[in-house]
Amino acid sequence: MADYLTAPKTSCLKENYLSVRAVTQSYAAPLSDADATVQSMEDASPAKWHLAHTSWFFETFLLKPMLPGYEVFDERYNFLFNSYYEAVGKRHARPRRGMITRPALDEVLAYRVHVDEAMERLIDQVDPAGYEDLYYLGLNHEEQHQELFLTDILHLFAQNPIRPAYRNPSPMEVSRPSEPRLTWHRFDGGIVKLGHAGEGFAFDSEGPQHEALVRPFEIAGRAVTSGEWTAFIEDGGYRNPMLWLSDGWAIVNERAWNAPLYWEETDNGWSLMTLRGFQPVDPDAPVSHISFYEADAFASWAAAQWDGARLPSEQEWEVAAAEIPVEGNFAGSRRLRPKPQTDEGLTGLYGDVWEWTSSPFTPYPGFKPAGGAVGEYNGKFMSGQMVLRGGSCATSDGHVRRSYRNFFHPDKRWQFSGLRLARDL
Amino acid sequence: MADYLTAPKTSCLKENYLSVRAVTQSYAAPLSDADATVQSMEDASPAKWHLAHTSWFFETFLLKPMLPGYEVFDERYNFLFNSYYEAVGKRHARPRRGMITRPALDEVLAYRVHVDEAMERLIDQVDPAGYEDLYYLGLNHEEQHQELFLTDILHLFAQNPIRPAYRNPSPMEVSRPSEPRLTWHRFDGGIVKLGHAGEGFAFDSEGPQHEALVRPFEIAGRAVTSGEWTAFIEDGGYRNPMLWLSDGWAIVNERAWNAPLYWEETDNGWSLMTLRGFQPVDPDAPVSHISFYEADAFASWAAAQWDGARLPSEQEWEVAAAEIPVEGNFAGSRRLRPKPQTDEGLTGLYGDVWEWTSSPFTPYPGFKPAGGAVGEYNGKFMSGQMVLRGGSCATSDGHVRRSYRNFFHPDKRWQFSGLRLARDL
Amino acid sequence: MADYLTAPKTSCLKENYLSVRAVTQSYAAPLSDADATVQSMEDASPAKWHLAHTSWFFETFLLKPMLPGYEVFDERYNFLFNSYYEAVGKRHARPRRGMITRPALDEVLAYRVHVDEAMERLIDQVDPAGYEDLYYLGLNHEEQHQELFLTDILHLFAQNPIRPAYRNPSPMEVSRPSEPRLTWHRFDGGIVKLGHAGEGFAFDSEGPQHEALVRPFEIAGRAVTSGEWTAFIEDGGYRNPMLWLSDGWAIVNERAWNAPLYWEETDNGWSLMTLRGFQPVDPDAPVSHISFYEADAFASWAAAQWDGARLPSEQEWEVAAAEIPVEGNFAGSRRLRPKPQTDEGLTGLYGDVWEWTSSPFTPYPGFKPAGGAVGEYNGKFMSGQMVLRGGSCATSDGHVRRSYRNFFHPDKRWQFSGLRLARDL
Amino acid sequence: MADYLTAPKTSCLKENYLSVRAVTQSYAAPLSDADATVQSMEDASPAKWHLAHTSWFFETFLLKPMLPGYEVFDERYNFLFNSYYEAVGKRHARPRRGMITRPALDEVLAYRVHVDEAMERLIDQVDPAGYEDLYYLGLNHEEQHQELFLTDILHLFAQNPIRPAYRNPSPMEVSRPSEPRLTWHRFDGGIVKLGHAGEGFAFDSEGPQHEALVRPFEIAGRAVTSGEWTAFIEDGGYRNPMLWLSDGWAIVNERAWNAPLYWEETDNGWSLMTLRGFQPVDPDAPVSHISFYEADAFASWAAAQWDGARLPSEQEWEVAAAEIPVEGNFAGSRRLRPKPQTDEGLTGLYGDVWEWTSSPFTPYPGFKPAGGAVGEYNGKFMSGQMVLRGGSCATSDGHVRRSYRNFFHPDKRWQFSGLRLARDL
Repeated sequence: MADYLTAPKTSCLKENYLSVRAVTQSYAAPLSDADATVQSMEDASPAKWHLAHTSWFFETFLLKPMLPGYEVFDERYNFLFNSYYEAVGKRHARPRRGMITRPALDEVLAYRVHVDEAMERLIDQVDPAGYEDLYYLGLNHEEQHQELFLTDILHLFAQNPIRPAYRNPSPMEVSRPSEPRLTWHRFDGGIVKLGHAGEGFAFDSEGPQHEALVRPFEIAGRAVTSGEWTAFIEDGGYRNPMLWLSDGWAIVNERAWNAPLYWEETDNGWSLMTLRGFQPVDPDAPVSHISFYEADAFASWAAAQWDGARLPSEQEWEVAAAEIPVEGNFAGSRRLRPKPQTDEGLTGLYGDVWEWTSSPFTPYPGFKPAGGAVGEYNGKFMSGQMVLRGGSCATSDGHVRRSYRNFFHPDKRWQFSGLRLARDL
Repeated sequence: MADYLTAPKTSCLKENYLSVRAVTQSYAAPLSDADATVQSMEDASPAKWHLAHTSWFFETFLLKPMLPGYEVFDERYNFLFNSYYEAVGKRHARPRRGMITRPALDEVLAYRVHVDEAMERLIDQVDPAGYEDLYYLGLNHEEQHQELFLTDILHLFAQNPIRPAYRNPSPMEVSRPSEPRLTWHRFDGGIVKLGHAGEGFAFDSEGPQHEALVRPFEIAGRAVTSGEWTAFIEDGGYRNPMLWLSDGWAIVNERAWNAPLYWEETDNGWSLMTLRGFQPVDPDAPVSHISFYEADAFASWAAAQWDGARLPSEQEWEVAAAEIPVEGNFAGSRRLRPKPQTDEGLTGLYGDVWEWTSSPFTPYPGFKPAGGAVGEYNGKFMSGQMVLRGGSCATSDGHVRRSYRNFFHPDKRWQFSGLRLARDL
Repeated sequence: MADYLTAPKTSCLKENYLSVRAVTQSYAAPLSDADATVQSMEDASPAKWHLAHTSWFFETFLLKPMLPGYEVFDERYNFLFNSYYEAVGKRHARPRRGMITRPALDEVLAYRVHVDEAMERLIDQVDPAGYEDLYYLGLNHEEQHQELFLTDILHLFAQNPIRPAYRNPSPMEVSRPSEPRLTWHRFDGGIVKLGHAGEGFAFDSEGPQHEALVRPFEIAGRAVTSGEWTAFIEDGGYRNPMLWLSDGWAIVNERAWNAPLYWEETDNGWSLMTLRGFQPVDPDAPVSHISFYEADAFASWAAAQWDGARLPSEQEWEVAAAEIPVEGNFAGSRRLRPKPQTDEGLTGLYGDVWEWTSSPFTPYPGFKPAGGAVGEYNGKFMSGQMVLRGGSCATSDGHVRRSYRNFFHPDKRWQFSGLRLARDL
Repeated sequence: MADYLTAPKTSCLKENYLSVRAVTQSYAAPLSDADATVQSMEDASPAKWHLAHTSWFFETFLLKPMLPGYEVFDERYNFLFNSYYEAVGKRHARPRRGMITRPALDEVLAYRVHVDEAMERLIDQVDPAGYEDLYYLGLNHEEQHQELFLTDILHLFAQNPIRPAYRNPSPMEVSRPSEPRLTWHRFDGGIVKLGHAGEGFAFDSEGPQHEALVRPFEIAGRAVTSGEWTAFIEDGGYRNPMLWLSDGWAIVNERAWNAPLYWEETDNGWSLMTLRGFQPVDPDAPVSHISFYEADAFASWAAAQWDGARLPSEQEWEVAAAEIPVEGNFAGSRRLRPKPQTDEGLTGLYGDVWEWTSSPFTPYPGFKPAGGAVGEYNGKFMSGQMVLRGGSCATSDGHVRRSYRNFFHPDKRWQFSGLRLARDL
């Protein structure tokens, strides 16, 4: 992973910037103009919007205020590609993002080039001290949208009865070992330090670092698998109200859920829509595309199977992750990196799927929202959402860290979201 | 206009076919892949869908059953581009037509070429007697979709804050004469013959020809203008419940209507979104993009201005149109044909806007739905909709005839729909 | 039935008034305060509201303007019990009528007494010439609400799992003869006079009398029975889209209709909720509680059974009813009057159920809404509704006449609504 | 307050039972049958339902399984008055509770007598050891419903334009002293013991007792007043998105909130609907009927007024309440008990309004849902709701304790809910 998170120096700012931006661009390569334009549901945004909005961030918060002589690419983009920043002016209504057939994908890509060239000039000409924080925020913001880009495209393609593949299945794909035994790993707890501190970028919600009291617990060595999920389905998991939170049970019935999102029963068992098209469900892979409500219901069901199993809190997850190096802990699907050879220790923490925790997304003690428009960043979402930890196969490298707090409403399941079990000692 | 409506001969079938199809293709020329893919509301369809669905009609009802050796272009299209024909198999849900980013516009255009080549073979090789009716139905069906193509694109572009123009404003545009005086034209009524009979194509709902008793009436020489509509607005027309049908008043409030669709108040008065972009409202042009409810409320208001004015029935409209030649009765905006020099007589009957009548869309006496899948054609829509007569600036030439019955639900206003007043004698 | 429809004389005005009012009061007798207060759906009104609103009509349009010294019972009632008369001031929102737990039923009954006493004074003291029209309108308005009172109570009681009976089943109930043979009766049509004219009360929408051209037709001697409806159900009528209007098919699926309203399949076949509680379906009784969409679908299905059967138009119905005396044409269920001894001729025209026609509710030629607040009477509902003719077991005597036009939206089925078939000659 | 919470002895079980039940009955005294039947919104239940459901609890969980020879009052009540206990069988849908006009209020009161007599027999004849836990749960459950009874009646009466008063304003009402100065009270935090332990009843969610780490903080001596809230309104609090959580801002706009529930602007300033009718807002009284979103927005606004003010967590609230005796801490409005003479120290903790905390309602460490049907008690609601602490003017005495955790969704505001500020040290 790049140096810039720990040792930001002027000399590598440009390189870091270009490399993050290049990833986003590469994501757009398989898409047609139409693919990049359509919005498949209110939660999702068009790919074109992600491409433009991330550029708008640099234009609005860095280039316009700090680069002398910067010329705005198109005045209308401030309205079209502002997201939720109420302080920066009116914005196009979120559910109508898919109406913007123009500017076309090509124009939006040209906008990216325009912004990129200006960013290079900014770095050349202006002392980074004045914009460094926003620069890192912008890159991390872009990496967030990289993941959403992929999950939103998957959702769009899943709506199409012909089920297009975003990527071709690779013949080189690393074969996954057979399902590892479920192991449990003990942690003593006590007063622990949690949250981000010190060097490297982190979002506002990851701090301030603070102490918390954590009770002894143990946590599973791997995430729950699709095979285990199938057992839950076959045991009537989706039809037993005793397993569900009240709000969750209402949703299950209202939306007629009977399996994870994208799962479909075929003559040959369960298959699911993926970025590589429609594929049989791999029973040994971590289950994905489940909501918090489903994760919680599974944990209630699992309590009987594994003696009091439950979801971990985000504190427990962070404690468990404390001595696990990020590097060695990617799961099999992650960029085809080799899977760890051993099933001792915790695996897949930063791997295939985000892991739902039992923790609502709330401010850490002492949290203060930043001032100004950027201050709208995360604080305003601290209500009604649940924390997920780790990272998924779609998460950008720069987003994989122990203190990272992802969050979604408990009914959402178009992310690569799964779960790992824990229990009291 | 083509001979084929009155004298269908084998020798000109091919020419007629190709000329109608070419018009549709030409409508797609200004569109990007994204423009052609997005669905702006449930009532509208993507341009790509119109392009494919009209081809699917020929493939399904003519080529597959009748052309020996015909190879279907893509089996999946039967699911994707079937519309409401329940008898022909499952179909993609209407509100989800905009999710189909693939096949791309190019592929759909290739589908059209594939169908067109096969249709030429069909006409060369097979006796038309076996498919002539479906052939004409297919062409008329395509002409219907030509109009929807334009109204749907206008609706889509109107959702985009940057308001793209579908066509460039032409510097050559015929200048419209100043508002003609409102004249009234008397008709004696009596027992009259109405509905289509004899030669030439007509939709099932235009027949059978039948007698009706019509009372003496008079009808306005021209449609209601935007200037007159502005007076209605300024007189509080949208805020006075006494003018409105009960259902209409509920809609006005629910949707906060205060002007026709696409009208927007600017610092310089009213402007509106058109296929040529955002333009000032021309007070002398017929008002357009109004619902039946608005037409009816305007008529209630107009009753006081013009001594008992009201909407005409479709019978009255057809009687009034009886001796007016279609050719000479296009209004100013229609393909830039010169406007009639005189304001005596009825003008604009087949012109700028469809004209709402007071008649619900019901079957004529003796109407029987055709058998088979095509039998679903119009009969199933004979409930809850109102008849419009005439034609608009977007109507294809082949659709302009005295007996034509257009129909929409009374709250719809994305068509080029206006009104003409009548009154009792 | 009372003389007052044909020979209004001052001397009997009081008697007529009191007798209509007494019927309404008697309807309230079996109800508790709670029964009379709850609103079971937006279409329905609480019984208490019917009791008060009909009194408000007399207070507002007769007593306040015309009775010297009249004291309003409670100023707040004008807000609470105004219905749709926009001209008379603000009104309590229709869907919130069920929130009015106070005034209690007793107070509303006291309001009725207050109004009744004042009406007697009015008739004694003031020349009827000044209010006669409104007097008759008020009584007819009250009779309309008498029917709604019963249908709304039935709907309310049907929501209660314990299924209360509004009336006790009578041991004396006339036994119904076995299903009469279906006979067809011919009418020549021609130019006929339709609509109300001359003496006796009629609603504005029943006139003006006018001529219409009606083609030869025949009409069934009785309404469609529940037994015939069961055959329609068993033949898959509710699952076959080819039988349904497009709007109707959408409703059938959205609301999961598979039988008339109130029908429920039990171990012993179909039963239904009635004003006398939960009862087995009588196969020989006219089917009731069907929507226009269902009536139309049944007619499509019946076209194959009875050679072109269809719904009659309201003109045809009125022609057929022309020489049938109202008195002798009540069906078995109506006030236990003896059923006609013969099945020759048309039976049940004014009987058990209102009969859906194929006619949308539109103004007759020459119709002009009355001026003033009362002018809101029927004209504003002339959109999107279908005409029913005849009368039902719940219709007040004063409402049974040949020219009466009842109307409801095509999806409504909480009225006692059925159908009778017709066909072309 | 009764002994039974701390020293349950067989001899006083009966007395305790009867006294709690009598309170509920007394709440019904001012209501008519209609008042007790109508459901004013989906969140609320009819008074009759509260009266019956609390009795159903004793019948279902105590009498049926444990009292030999007990005869069920009415078999149908198990369906009608079950609430959310999925394990006990089907239940009447919550939003349709207001359709149950029968059984009438009288019958429901007779049901209560029937259950009460049987409960007396149970206590006389059966060893309490077998049902003691359920007995206390039942009484506490009933006390919960006592509060809901009042808040639901207030909501119902507030829908009625004539604004009935549930209780008459008392001339004896204790006059409230002028607004006390806002004082701040410091707490050191550290590792503290939280949650219920030991003797006396508590709901499952109040335990287990556990340790938590709390940072030093200070908390306001009294709740936020209506006068302070008016300042927030006047400063544009409801129109400034920067103050609001994202979900809250959406709600504010969707529901057009501009003041607490029941507040209405009159010519003489703000008034509000109360159980004693429509009254002027008292600026010195605690603000009530606010949602969590509003409390949170107010705290954001207050951060600038009072140097970092924010909502307290539920841990902080419990720490602050630790040394405050419940008895002396009722506020002025509570049963007219005298207000504490001093404004030193924390006042009103268990007083007029429930106080929103910043804590989502989640299980305490080690929480396990109880087995069986009663196990559905609180665990299934631990998602998407926020904790309120203290108690309100409508809270039953038995519900006032330091460990009590009330909870509601963050948009709800028909409870007597307010807030108290805190801040970091």
